[in-house]
Amino acid sequence: MTDQATVERLLRQAEQPSREAMRLHPFYRGKYEIIPKACIRDFDDFAIWYTPGVAAPCRDIQRNPQRVWDHTAKGNTIAIVSDGSRVLGLGDIGPEAGLPVMEGKALLFKYLGGVDAVPLCLDAHEPEEIITAVKWLQPSFGGFNLEDIAKPKCFQVLDTLRAEARVPVWHDDQQGTAAVTVAGLINALKVVGKPLDQVKVVLDGAGAANIRIAHLLIQAGIDSGRMILCDSHGTIHRGRRELEQGEPEKWKLALVTNAEQLAGTTAEALRGADVLISLTVPGPGVIKPDWISGMAGGAVVFACANPVPEIWPWEARDAGARVVATGRSDFPNQVNNSLGFPGIFRGTLDVRARTITDEMCLEAALELARCAEERGLRDDYIIPTMDDWEVFPREAAAVGMKAVEQGVALVTDVTAESLRQQAQQVISRSRQMVDTLQKEGLVKLPEP
Amino acid sequence: MTDQATVERLLRQAEQPSREAMRLHPFYRGKYEIIPKACIRDFDDFAIWYTPGVAAPCRDIQRNPQRVWDHTAKGNTIAIVSDGSRVLGLGDIGPEAGLPVMEGKALLFKYLGGVDAVPLCLDAHEPEEIITAVKWLQPSFGGFNLEDIAKPKCFQVLDTLRAEARVPVWHDDQQGTAAVTVAGLINALKVVGKPLDQVKVVLDGAGAANIRIAHLLIQAGIDSGRMILCDSHGTIHRGRRELEQGEPEKWKLALVTNAEQLAGTTAEALRGADVLISLTVPGPGVIKPDWISGMAGGAVVFACANPVPEIWPWEARDAGARVVATGRSDFPNQVNNSLGFPGIFRGTLDVRARTITDEMCLEAALELARCAEERGLRDDYIIPTMDDWEVFPREAAAVGMKAVEQGVALVTDVTAESLRQQAQQVISRSRQMVDTLQKEGLVKLPEP
Repeated sequence: MTDQATVERLLRQAEQPSREAMRLHPFYRGKYEIIPKACIRDFDDFAIWYTPGVAAPCRDIQRNPQRVWDHTAKGNTIAIVSDGSRVLGLGDIGPEAGLPVMEGKALLFKYLGGVDAVPLCLDAHEPEEIITAVKWLQPSFGGFNLEDIAKPKCFQVLDTLRAEARVPVWHDDQQGTAAVTVAGLINALKVVGKPLDQVKVVLDGAGAANIRIAHLLIQAGIDSGRMILCDSHGTIHRGRRELEQGEPEKWKLALVTNAEQLAGTTAEALRGADVLISLTVPGPGVIKPDWISGMAGGAVVFACANPVPEIWPWEARDAGARVVATGRSDFPNQVNNSLGFPGIFRGTLDVRARTITDEMCLEAALELARCAEERGLRDDYIIPTMDDWEVFPREAAAVGMKAVEQGVALVTDVTAESLRQQAQQVISRSRQMVDTLQKEGLVKLPEP
Repeated sequence: MTDQATVERLLRQAEQPSREAMRLHPFYRGKYEIIPKACIRDFDDFAIWYTPGVAAPCRDIQRNPQRVWDHTAKGNTIAIVSDGSRVLGLGDIGPEAGLPVMEGKALLFKYLGGVDAVPLCLDAHEPEEIITAVKWLQPSFGGFNLEDIAKPKCFQVLDTLRAEARVPVWHDDQQGTAAVTVAGLINALKVVGKPLDQVKVVLDGAGAANIRIAHLLIQAGIDSGRMILCDSHGTIHRGRRELEQGEPEKWKLALVTNAEQLAGTTAEALRGADVLISLTVPGPGVIKPDWISGMAGGAVVFACANPVPEIWPWEARDAGARVVATGRSDFPNQVNNSLGFPGIFRGTLDVRARTITDEMCLEAALELARCAEERGLRDDYIIPTMDDWEVFPREAAAVGMKAVEQGVALVTDVTAESLRQQAQQVISRSRQMVDTLQKEGLVKLPEP
């Protein structure tokens, strides 16, 4: 058992990032800024970058629209688009209150993936409005990362834009979370020595993320019949006919999962299960220890609600879980999107893919899993941490090559190795920029 | 007379920026990029900037909406919004082809004003659509710089957004051009020794810029009766009743300018005029030398079409002009918006003004004029160049203090000196960032 003093220490530690966030956000007043990417040797250069010289590339793009990729930042720039309707586990807090998250994401995009990402929090809330906004914004961007948009509108927004936009559109809470979760689960099952196609998996929470995770798990080789999805009404099964009209995304899964047609609570579904993937509401106390005690030996528990997991990791382990993962960077086994989106977008942009397919996501997951495996899997190391930074160029290469193979890439004269090297160079430059600016005092370090 | 060899040399020189622009735009693939503004000491900092720590500032903003200014980059970040419908002198080339200009502007905003500006080229062309897009985008931005939007829609977009947006909205082609032109003209008249209220001014071209220039000149003390506006049909006077319904912006000026009610061509209007401000179509050859020969002695000619002035400066001087200004940085007397918007937005953001009033623009113009005067005016120095960089903090202070005086500023515990110093610090940091990144090879210099 974890003793009381340890629990208190862990709780204090878990509160530390919030305290620092409240102190340091106003210190910096923002987590991203713009910087010139082109040289300014002297003021004569303004005649090249602005009037009169700039007219020449403008005319060139007017004549040859594809040259926008050569003359502008479009090819490395994406927008992070949110309406703030489902921010972390905080719910519908609105676009202004969601902005710190989107800025944090921009920071991660650049530092981990070398991708220039602009946080755009929209005062537009109808799905049609978000779709329209993204379409209008296309000329400036090489892609869009949708973020923290509530369901069900997120499904309509993503599906419509994937079909109708001219550049890749990705909903990180669906596709990104799925890629990283699948990578973590592949390795967790290796740690506990259970084959992918024989485990019983319970997905608690039938939100956008878990729905996409279910699909990607099936694609990865999990037996769909042994998978049970639960929502706030309990297990999802074919008896819940109200889903057929009301929640078609759930109904689709009702038809292929839960072969035994178990009707009951999450706790009941968990009896004898090998895996729990929980993406519900912030905890602690949402997952009860006795639910976990009822699982099979060598249980794998992913408690991924943000900002606080459904159960503290030490409680889950005390209840019998062998491998525990959360969404937090201050615990081991962080199943966090940050391991996915920077590398996936890096690869997507580098081959100028016109979309991000499910197969590209699965490639990223498999490569991510391999990266951790090569370092040696343990109960508390099933997935790379963000400082295993070679994972990002490797994901980029895997994603880019799959895009080429699937015929969705515009740049095709690449190899896995050329993509990996290019990504490594770009990402390494990002980090050097940060280091240099900090070293020179241009990004100041706060008092400890 | 300027000899043929000199003309050829000047023409070659005038073509140089275009050649370099075509070579160097693809070298950099973009003129702006994103960089983390907050420290990344190690990977633990991600728990502060992203999940779980970031939830604390999110909740704080949800409770106290004003704190978005403290916790995010909003207060220093604006969007440069264009639909590409009137780019430089190139016309309606569309949002993609306009992107190089907006990126160039972002580069200038940061380097000259320390303002983070995101180029947003919109695939939205109806005035109502542009208005809607800007309103939707408000949460992320502390202001908007509208750019290169054709008239008449630019009037409706600007007027509506100035009335309805929660943050300042500015149309640089109207307000920015006016501020800088007025500054230049004030000094040009000092050089030729003519008092502001006694000169005859011809404004050729009745586009958005010249219409706003006319208003600001009147506000600055020019006698409106001695001012004549010309459009492609000739002089504007009260006999042109079709304007009353069709072009209300021109009609408003028809009522107060051209006291003699001269009906005729631009050439006729220019006979005996002291000043020509031309903002028509790219030259050369648009203004004829004999038009200038017909002006009064000590003629002042602003030939400001971009990218090529309506008449080459040497031709204008050969025809008798004493002071000649253009929009180009490769000739003396560049009457360019770049002298205005960086300082004006710096001041606006630093006092968190909710709008940019005409009076704030005029203050910027007067301060800009003073900066050049203090250095000593000459025929070929009527306005600071962009490397007289103390002008930007001085403009910022002048603009900020006027905003406070007019009661449109949220931050009021400032002095002109505190604003100037703050602006100087921010701008100087921008320049150091650029210098540092170039010195470290992180922004590479091209082959000469």
